[in-house]
Amino acid sequence: MRVSDGQELAEVGLCVGVAGCGYWGSNHLRVLQSVPGVREVMAIDQDSRILAETVERHPFINTSGSVEEALEQVDALIIATPPSSHASLAVAALEAGVHVMPEKPLATSVAEARQVVELADSTGLVLMCGHTFEYNSAVWRLRDLIQSGELGQIYHVDAARLNLGLYRDDVNVIWDLAPHDISIVNYLFDSQPTTIRAWATPHAHQDLEDLACLQLHYSDIDVSAQIHVSWLDPHKVRRVTVIGSEKMAVFNDMAVDERIRVYDKGVAFGVNNDGTAAYRHGGIESPFIAFEEPLMVEDRQFVRSIITGETPPSDGRSGLAVVKALAAAEQSLRLGRPVDLVDTALKVAVA
Amino acid sequence: MRVSDGQELAEVGLCVGVAGCGYWGSNHLRVLQSVPGVREVMAIDQDSRILAETVERHPFINTSGSVEEALEQVDALIIATPPSSHASLAVAALEAGVHVMPEKPLATSVAEARQVVELADSTGLVLMCGHTFEYNSAVWRLRDLIQSGELGQIYHVDAARLNLGLYRDDVNVIWDLAPHDISIVNYLFDSQPTTIRAWATPHAHQDLEDLACLQLHYSDIDVSAQIHVSWLDPHKVRRVTVIGSEKMAVFNDMAVDERIRVYDKGVAFGVNNDGTAAYRHGGIESPFIAFEEPLMVEDRQFVRSIITGETPPSDGRSGLAVVKALAAAEQSLRLGRPVDLVDTALKVAVA
Amino acid sequence: MRVSDGQELAEVGLCVGVAGCGYWGSNHLRVLQSVPGVREVMAIDQDSRILAETVERHPFINTSGSVEEALEQVDALIIATPPSSHASLAVAALEAGVHVMPEKPLATSVAEARQVVELADSTGLVLMCGHTFEYNSAVWRLRDLIQSGELGQIYHVDAARLNLGLYRDDVNVIWDLAPHDISIVNYLFDSQPTTIRAWATPHAHQDLEDLACLQLHYSDIDVSAQIHVSWLDPHKVRRVTVIGSEKMAVFNDMAVDERIRVYDKGVAFGVNNDGTAAYRHGGIESPFIAFEEPLMVEDRQFVRSIITGETPPSDGRSGLAVVKALAAAEQSLRLGRPVDLVDTALKVAVA
Amino acid sequence: MRVSDGQELAEVGLCVGVAGCGYWGSNHLRVLQSVPGVREVMAIDQDSRILAETVERHPFINTSGSVEEALEQVDALIIATPPSSHASLAVAALEAGVHVMPEKPLATSVAEARQVVELADSTGLVLMCGHTFEYNSAVWRLRDLIQSGELGQIYHVDAARLNLGLYRDDVNVIWDLAPHDISIVNYLFDSQPTTIRAWATPHAHQDLEDLACLQLHYSDIDVSAQIHVSWLDPHKVRRVTVIGSEKMAVFNDMAVDERIRVYDKGVAFGVNNDGTAAYRHGGIESPFIAFEEPLMVEDRQFVRSIITGETPPSDGRSGLAVVKALAAAEQSLRLGRPVDLVDTALKVAVA
Repeated sequence: MRVSDGQELAEVGLCVGVAGCGYWGSNHLRVLQSVPGVREVMAIDQDSRILAETVERHPFINTSGSVEEALEQVDALIIATPPSSHASLAVAALEAGVHVMPEKPLATSVAEARQVVELADSTGLVLMCGHTFEYNSAVWRLRDLIQSGELGQIYHVDAARLNLGLYRDDVNVIWDLAPHDISIVNYLFDSQPTTIRAWATPHAHQDLEDLACLQLHYSDIDVSAQIHVSWLDPHKVRRVTVIGSEKMAVFNDMAVDERIRVYDKGVAFGVNNDGTAAYRHGGIESPFIAFEEPLMVEDRQFVRSIITGETPPSDGRSGLAVVKALAAAEQSLRLGRPVDLVDTALKVAVA
Repeated sequence: MRVSDGQELAEVGLCVGVAGCGYWGSNHLRVLQSVPGVREVMAIDQDSRILAETVERHPFINTSGSVEEALEQVDALIIATPPSSHASLAVAALEAGVHVMPEKPLATSVAEARQVVELADSTGLVLMCGHTFEYNSAVWRLRDLIQSGELGQIYHVDAARLNLGLYRDDVNVIWDLAPHDISIVNYLFDSQPTTIRAWATPHAHQDLEDLACLQLHYSDIDVSAQIHVSWLDPHKVRRVTVIGSEKMAVFNDMAVDERIRVYDKGVAFGVNNDGTAAYRHGGIESPFIAFEEPLMVEDRQFVRSIITGETPPSDGRSGLAVVKALAAAEQSLRLGRPVDLVDTALKVAVA
Repeated sequence: MRVSDGQELAEVGLCVGVAGCGYWGSNHLRVLQSVPGVREVMAIDQDSRILAETVERHPFINTSGSVEEALEQVDALIIATPPSSHASLAVAALEAGVHVMPEKPLATSVAEARQVVELADSTGLVLMCGHTFEYNSAVWRLRDLIQSGELGQIYHVDAARLNLGLYRDDVNVIWDLAPHDISIVNYLFDSQPTTIRAWATPHAHQDLEDLACLQLHYSDIDVSAQIHVSWLDPHKVRRVTVIGSEKMAVFNDMAVDERIRVYDKGVAFGVNNDGTAAYRHGGIESPFIAFEEPLMVEDRQFVRSIITGETPPSDGRSGLAVVKALAAAEQSLRLGRPVDLVDTALKVAVA
Repeated sequence: MRVSDGQELAEVGLCVGVAGCGYWGSNHLRVLQSVPGVREVMAIDQDSRILAETVERHPFINTSGSVEEALEQVDALIIATPPSSHASLAVAALEAGVHVMPEKPLATSVAEARQVVELADSTGLVLMCGHTFEYNSAVWRLRDLIQSGELGQIYHVDAARLNLGLYRDDVNVIWDLAPHDISIVNYLFDSQPTTIRAWATPHAHQDLEDLACLQLHYSDIDVSAQIHVSWLDPHKVRRVTVIGSEKMAVFNDMAVDERIRVYDKGVAFGVNNDGTAAYRHGGIESPFIAFEEPLMVEDRQFVRSIITGETPPSDGRSGLAVVKALAAAEQSLRLGRPVDLVDTALKVAVA
């Protein structure tokens, strides 16, 4: 029988299931095999062909063709199925007494996301959201640069996440890719956007928007952000630029060696007597950053939170905040104008 | 006495003035000295300090401290002053019987731009607009790739023009940088945008927006375009990506050797039986492109148009189309919603 | 009891041991778990601390602290220990009736390498050498470009393999890194160098040369090659440039997307009437190359050769040829002059 | 009549001739027009077609078809003709009382170089050698990094200067390209190489070596250097890497923004208890370096040295030192073994 008590789990070791064994689920399966505290890994997929391939790659793990059955055996479930099924599977897991980590986004509507968060609260089980970048040491460094004041007053964040594919067939590119960038910006500033506008168009796909651009405003810190996402670009781009009054920093997740670069550059007015802009062009620094695969850090955090009760950085509230921003972007897209999140945010804060 | 007859000019050689001897005007001065058909180059600037520096760099050219005076001597005038003065100087030149090439944008309002175009029409003098990229062999190649059908049906154009500075003090970053990209896209498709939305915010400057993003739609060809411009970015970016159903092409103006790269990549639906996306990942080609400094090509075209009467690619109508798009972007920015250009476009077409 | 008959092995599955569980041995362990035909993987290392870490990363594999003991259980052995022990362990394996794949170099002297090759011949067991790049699809493409004549007559190969570290303590940088490049060039042309000169100096290490440059000549095809290797460079470089009379090709193993680039560039004399060089600057192509981890391909080949008796590309003779070139380089280094391999090569060809 | 007195020249302004109006001579012509103290620029070439093109590009300068004639008019002569004519033209200029700056190399034999240096000494005229990189602010920064001790003890310099072309028809690639790198390394350390070995092969050209690699040793500072030059490479590379015990620095002359990068990386032995290498991987810094076209700085220095009598960095002795190294490389190439420069160096020091 499954136990949910941390101490017992620590002794016995957890059985962790992964629902959905596609590209990303397969990464969880690989990583989980080396996470301390995991006694057993179970691959779960309805598609028997995918399951067979999974076994070929990971001959030492168990499998199941049904989440319902698996929920009777696992202590914890990672959900890497299509986005539209995240919330219902999370509810099923929590109702079965199983700790749960849905991949991003937590849900595809605010109502669903809220339901999952509230259910987790009431059961006392761990709910963690798969915002990988909150477990990325380069993002931690970017946050340090901001919070230490080294970049000066922050003006703007510009994020781009582009590639050819992978198209989803249940959500558009905003719901698929923007959760990463929204969770990054929220995390960098411990804040949430207050106004969002979105533009998106479908091209290669008949209905689903494959190119989009979001503009966000964070009113408490007076920071603007732009998020450019695409399934239809020849370059693979994963880049976040933070522009401050003193310095600018770039997080390039495609770089192996220089994930963070800090530019000692800026412009100031009121310095030159003639009112013209005074530019400062200093050097560029790429600090050394010890790097560990973020998914490994994330999965270890999930197990540790289950065992110790420690709240993870990307908890349910963090997942809900991202879903709220996505829903507002969707609404802006349909209305053709900016959408305000303030009221909703207040309600959530109260809830 | 000045002549405006092409044949006479061809024999005698032109005297060409450059009003405004800052960074860009100085480039015209350098280039003009090697343009066939130019007999004399005159630097014009009110600021005597700038004029002195200009003479030091170009010891063999003449100077003038006043446009009025210079207009009595020159056959043609290039206007490289701040944008808000382009139209009035162009009018002065045309009224003085002088051929004129204002730098982009042609004017800072549609009314002014129209006035300049109409005046040029009535005088028969050459009016050309300094859309440098229409004289860039890499842009010609991009246009060939599109018009030959090699890229397939065009879905989208994504343009980025970023750097730290140079801030202007009479117009925001949209009016300063977006003319390049609008003129490029208009030129690539021989078309004009029908709907524009804009987002922009001021950061380092108190009033003038230094970061902006425009979304355009070209309804006749059903192409969307996004233009990202910034005076406040650590990277110097000058890039136009064209996404077609068959291939994708990137024009990178910062690259010395591979200004155009063609990606044989794409996605198709309806190919795989299970309805999933079928991706095509082919090779990448960088065609060799003989390159000549576009400003040289542009200035030669200006002189040739004066001598032969040949209509230049970036004529007054082309300049007016760009100003109309900029004005619509400005309007969208103030209203917070997309702005339609169709009616205006029709009026102009009639005019 | 161990069987060495291929058919039986195919039915039962092989038990494969990996001697030496450092960085590279650990990669073999990871890969072997997914190789078809492998029933069991055994990690072998004298260092119990390393063995414990190995188990943590690969909880489902067996271990052994002694090669002698392991040789009683395994069907095949991969040797990833320090270079100076490769030959003696290979001999031990072959004498125990175990198929063997030493990592490069096969041995640290020609005599030892020859002994291993002869022993394998007499036992009929598989001897394969871990020249990973012969299992790299980008190298295959480079070979196709050469052998199809697309590059024209080949003039020269320039190879660079640079990084900070990893210093070995039993051999210098030539013996550590140059085997890769020598095996690549030999493989590209199905040939062996006939003259070698080497230059190398020790810097950070007291005795072992950490920077070196080899110049090779392949007389049958009249191709020169230069190999630059370093343990002491700030950049990680893994690049092979092949220069032909018609085109030039670059294999950049650090590139994710464009491992092979083909430059349609060249120079010809006797074309221009005035005797000057005629340059050809055409386009650049990056063909799409499906890529699979070369170590996986290599380990699969090892297993397949054991089961089917198929001779692998990097067989013992290939390993011996590389050792001969390394020994000649070492000799050139000590003598300060080029060293001829022809006689030795003939002897080996006869043997 | 020509004056050679500095003060008079300063008042009147110099007439400077450029002999040889090919690619590089043409750059001198462009630059000289903006050098303070230059009153007149004269283009000198025997080829009337080249002279006509020169006039088209630089309509305001004078021309001459004969060096002899020109020497009667100019105060100073820059020699940008083929290398084999540098020395004889320099002698002619000095004998005519004309200050002279031959492009690199100063001569194509040590005897000739020595003759030019001695003649300049006896006449008191300025002899400067066109080692452009000694006037490059990035090289100055590299020298500061070395001389300040920031890089620690210097181990090695690795230089690469590769491209397709431009083939010369009077000297091989060593005499054409290596002068740059030899002059850089000599300048960085205020030293001269004591031993040189060279390897080179002709490929596209029948006789002239188009690929070469030099290894140099500087015994007074115990630094080794490797110089790789090629007329036959698909990439344009202009890079100097300096490896020190504390840090490593790279000068990349192809980079626009980050010409110098400093890597806080290294390896040490004797730190780890087990005798293994201890690696240090710190950050990377790209200092901001104000950059001015080195040729402009060089030509200004030439004029200033003429007027003030100030000894320029790249004086005749500096030019002679480079020629001596080139001649030793040539000798090594012919002999197939390293060549010692010590004795020769002493003789020169005495001379």
